[in-house]
Amino acid sequence: MQVPSPSTREAASMYGTVVAIFLVILVATLQSSAPPENPFPYRVPLDPEGSLELSWNVSYAQKTVHFQLLVQELKAGVLFGMSDRGELENADLVVLWTDGDSTYFGDAWSDQRGQIHLDSRQDYQLLRARRTPEGLSLIFKRPFDTCDPKDYLIEDGTVHLVYGVLEEPFRTLEAINTSGLQTGLQRVQLLKPSIPIPALPVDTHTMEIRTPDVLIPDQPTTYWCHITELPDGFSRHHIVMYEPIVTKGNEALVHHMEVFQCAAQFETFPQFSGPCDSKMKPGRLNYCRHVLAAWALGAKAFYYPEEAGLAFGGAGSSRFLRLEVHYHNPLKIQGRRDSSGIRLHYTATLRRFDAGIMELGLVYSPVMAIPPRETAFVLTGYCTDKCTQLALPPSGIHIFASQLHTHLTGRKVVTVLVRDGRETEIVNRDDHYSPHFQEIRMLKKTVSVRPGDVLVTSCTYNTEDRELATVGGFGILEEMCVNYVHYYPQTQLEVCKSTVDPGFLREYFHLVNRFNGEEVCTCPQASVPEQFAAVPWNSFNRDVLRALYGFAPISMHCNKSSAVRFQGEWNRQPLPEIISKLEEPTSHCPASQDQSPSSHPVVNIGGGKG
Amino acid sequence: MQVPSPSTREAASMYGTVVAIFLVILVATLQSSAPPENPFPYRVPLDPEGSLELSWNVSYAQKTVHFQLLVQELKAGVLFGMSDRGELENADLVVLWTDGDSTYFGDAWSDQRGQIHLDSRQDYQLLRARRTPEGLSLIFKRPFDTCDPKDYLIEDGTVHLVYGVLEEPFRTLEAINTSGLQTGLQRVQLLKPSIPIPALPVDTHTMEIRTPDVLIPDQPTTYWCHITELPDGFSRHHIVMYEPIVTKGNEALVHHMEVFQCAAQFETFPQFSGPCDSKMKPGRLNYCRHVLAAWALGAKAFYYPEEAGLAFGGAGSSRFLRLEVHYHNPLKIQGRRDSSGIRLHYTATLRRFDAGIMELGLVYSPVMAIPPRETAFVLTGYCTDKCTQLALPPSGIHIFASQLHTHLTGRKVVTVLVRDGRETEIVNRDDHYSPHFQEIRMLKKTVSVRPGDVLVTSCTYNTEDRELATVGGFGILEEMCVNYVHYYPQTQLEVCKSTVDPGFLREYFHLVNRFNGEEVCTCPQASVPEQFAAVPWNSFNRDVLRALYGFAPISMHCNKSSAVRFQGEWNRQPLPEIISKLEEPTSHCPASQDQSPSSHPVVNIGGGKG
Repeated sequence: MQVPSPSTREAASMYGTVVAIFLVILVATLQSSAPPENPFPYRVPLDPEGSLELSWNVSYAQKTVHFQLLVQELKAGVLFGMSDRGELENADLVVLWTDGDSTYFGDAWSDQRGQIHLDSRQDYQLLRARRTPEGLSLIFKRPFDTCDPKDYLIEDGTVHLVYGVLEEPFRTLEAINTSGLQTGLQRVQLLKPSIPIPALPVDTHTMEIRTPDVLIPDQPTTYWCHITELPDGFSRHHIVMYEPIVTKGNEALVHHMEVFQCAAQFETFPQFSGPCDSKMKPGRLNYCRHVLAAWALGAKAFYYPEEAGLAFGGAGSSRFLRLEVHYHNPLKIQGRRDSSGIRLHYTATLRRFDAGIMELGLVYSPVMAIPPRETAFVLTGYCTDKCTQLALPPSGIHIFASQLHTHLTGRKVVTVLVRDGRETEIVNRDDHYSPHFQEIRMLKKTVSVRPGDVLVTSCTYNTEDRELATVGGFGILEEMCVNYVHYYPQTQLEVCKSTVDPGFLREYFHLVNRFNGEEVCTCPQASVPEQFAAVPWNSFNRDVLRALYGFAPISMHCNKSSAVRFQGEWNRQPLPEIISKLEEPTSHCPASQDQSPSSHPVVNIGGGKG
Repeated sequence: MQVPSPSTREAASMYGTVVAIFLVILVATLQSSAPPENPFPYRVPLDPEGSLELSWNVSYAQKTVHFQLLVQELKAGVLFGMSDRGELENADLVVLWTDGDSTYFGDAWSDQRGQIHLDSRQDYQLLRARRTPEGLSLIFKRPFDTCDPKDYLIEDGTVHLVYGVLEEPFRTLEAINTSGLQTGLQRVQLLKPSIPIPALPVDTHTMEIRTPDVLIPDQPTTYWCHITELPDGFSRHHIVMYEPIVTKGNEALVHHMEVFQCAAQFETFPQFSGPCDSKMKPGRLNYCRHVLAAWALGAKAFYYPEEAGLAFGGAGSSRFLRLEVHYHNPLKIQGRRDSSGIRLHYTATLRRFDAGIMELGLVYSPVMAIPPRETAFVLTGYCTDKCTQLALPPSGIHIFASQLHTHLTGRKVVTVLVRDGRETEIVNRDDHYSPHFQEIRMLKKTVSVRPGDVLVTSCTYNTEDRELATVGGFGILEEMCVNYVHYYPQTQLEVCKSTVDPGFLREYFHLVNRFNGEEVCTCPQASVPEQFAAVPWNSFNRDVLRALYGFAPISMHCNKSSAVRFQGEWNRQPLPEIISKLEEPTSHCPASQDQSPSSHPVVNIGGGKG
């Protein structure tokens, strides 16, 4: 064994926790909690070349994630970790590094300048380090919540993984700054739901919707559109499962894929296979928007619940499908061919229930706007008791999956179920939501919604880099706040969303004019986006807009399809009243450190009574 | 030694920290950090009979308070502690209790139902328990901040002490509920400033301003007013110190005392000695409001800084003084006579500087109002750069003491010094402020204010028990937000306060009318209190009022006396901009508990290089 340099030894003795590993020799499993049988069911490439690969599993019983990091070609070391939104500063890290003599493994963190420090507590626990034919395999585990405020809290929803490559030895860990390294991020849902896989019917058939051996463009970002059609006379079937097909070698390039069904109103759709933003793309393909299947990096097969399936084929539905594949090629790799796609598993033996998709959140309308230079502005959309009362069957519906959706400034999305004025359950929540990572996620637990329940969907936006207000709308620079919930049994209710009452918004603009003197006019004859653009965004106008959205009545869209409303009065509806909030889960972490009891004096001198 | 009952033994072994004390025998000092020479300079009775007495000292070096609790007649035990506002629920407690066999001492806390639990950490450390001729003396100490979230954080400003008497043994600590006990509270400034005592001039004389052997009324609350006068021809002197004189035996009854000088505009004032709210009290006594001295329970002598004194006597000032004594007699004790008062120490050898008093905060005007049912509504008053630029000498002024003042709903008061847009220093702060405990407090550190500085005074109010808005004003049911700062050298500036611009408030009422439809009219012809009374206090009207106060221009009172303004434009002044806030002091507490390093595996198998 070689002697580490003094500074390293100092660091090691200072913390008493640095683990020196010697990679030639197999390190036996250190813990009785060895990785289970099928050790790492989930897998993503971390870097665009796929030379770093992470696989993992989740133990909800132990509240622990086991990771396997596969490093194809180890240079002087590697760092891996998690951070709020994928930044390399303020990140929770494990670092494998060498000082030239020995190699060390430690739980570390990076400060706001990117400098790396060893954690005072070592919560990433190294279980095994081994050379394999594929590269160096490191196996380690970490609790969801380590109670160390320097560590990332692993929660449901998106997790931003980060990595970095050490090209040369560092004398000490503290000498490493992430800003000088080759680094990157990868988004995954780390805490996959552990739900039993439903049995598939015996007469299940498969259909592959794939790109036709396309040449992946040497562009960082390509959305590839490919039109296919169902066989002539294809009758009504139920999709019961679908899974990704990723061309071998392209795992790091295929970022996400979706299959859409085209609108039934058109008899036929033109053939097309090319970038979705191509000028050659027929305009009619914009009518292919009904989601049949969606997959994103790190996701596995999607199973429908045993009693439900997604109907496709048959009368009243289009035979045409659009496959969209997002190729993420930041290194502009050339000449790579791809036939990735989605394999649908379907049955002619229709299940008891049709599955449906319902849109919750905000109407796509400019009356809901976010002031510029906000770090966390919240907009909220409601599906009211009046609408669920009218549209849901007496036995209610069961939400089993959810896809959250915003445009570029979205940072968090949550939908909460409110019953009798009380928040009772979270339908889906992502506190690290990214508009660049929109999966359909199976819920850990099916959420049942009854007639009279309220569904409240809130989105948090960051407009720090914008000069003008961001209004609601379809444009990529406008915003949305949507949760597409997948549920059964299907109902006629397709859209249950709200906006603020436009009359109250007019009063807001009137108030802005009065309070800001003659120099400002958010004039009534202007359009709502124009009026918002004229607002001087001082603290008062921001605060009052926030207060307005938290108070004013709403207009409801309680619709059978995007245009057809259920009958009733849907304007100037009262904002649902919420009398009690869900409690935040209490931390299991001790509120303070425990001193050893021996440090307290025990007074015990003599006898007698007080 | 007798054996504790099993349940007590269980509790003791469970925590390993309960201290059994046997009171017949002197317990030697356990710690090397023994109480210092003059062990307990500060002293207050806790209960109205004075049968529980607390004395204490403060070590800023050790950040620790040493307490001595003297229990005149111990029954089955006693509890003592602190809580946010003097409630016995959610209190941090030490408990001395017996199960009938042994007597125990422990650090405990009460939950929101008043039930007592032992702390998992024992931060109150018993140093000595001894029977004395005066009663049982318990000496214990506690750090300001124990890092235990169940413990009270001892901060500057008011501390609400609580106590309770155990009349009978309890089998376990958990069996005690504070709701069943005789309990009470006492307010003190626990963290007295440790400033060196300035030497008094050799020609210092004293003058006692005392009540003339009055019979304390058998009422819970009496404010006694007594008029005295300075000797004929009494020339200009400097008060350099004053101290309380409390009639022996009445320590628990005399709550606070103030000496006011009457207005110079009247040649003479009528004699009077009686309750201040008596119908017999001459109306002219309302002109005796200029504070010369103020004392409250637990306070010691008040020393002026060596270079300054408070002028009184001589031409241009009234010879008449009003002494006000607040008798607090909740037990309605009869027949007690009292001659308490204040002893002024003054000198004819005038010091270099006259001391002055300046009023900071909010103008007494109804335009500043607090909505009803608010738990923590903040109003803020400004002393602007424009006013200090005009009124302060180039070398600035030095604030050495401060008296905070609100009416009944005040809960917190703070004044912050802002220089060049940055908060730089706290002038005075009380996060547990009580309108029932208004002392003049010497500052730990003199605060220098330069021309161009801004002083921002914020008061937090609780109007949970009110149905209508609370407006600013003189009435006891109206509110004030004032910091009387004591400073030198005296300037002409007596009042530096603000209100919101009345024009902007009119816009607010206009907005309330527009947003709330025809049923509401906060009509312009009505008075401001009437308009506030007509506001329907929904979330929008609350939020917008808060936003208005945080945004609208202000009207300044930058006055030489309460009526005479400095020259200049003082209406529609911009709200001072604050570009950086003072950082909250970072906690010294470890962010997480330290695990012992030995629980981490050290991997060290074989040699070789990675």
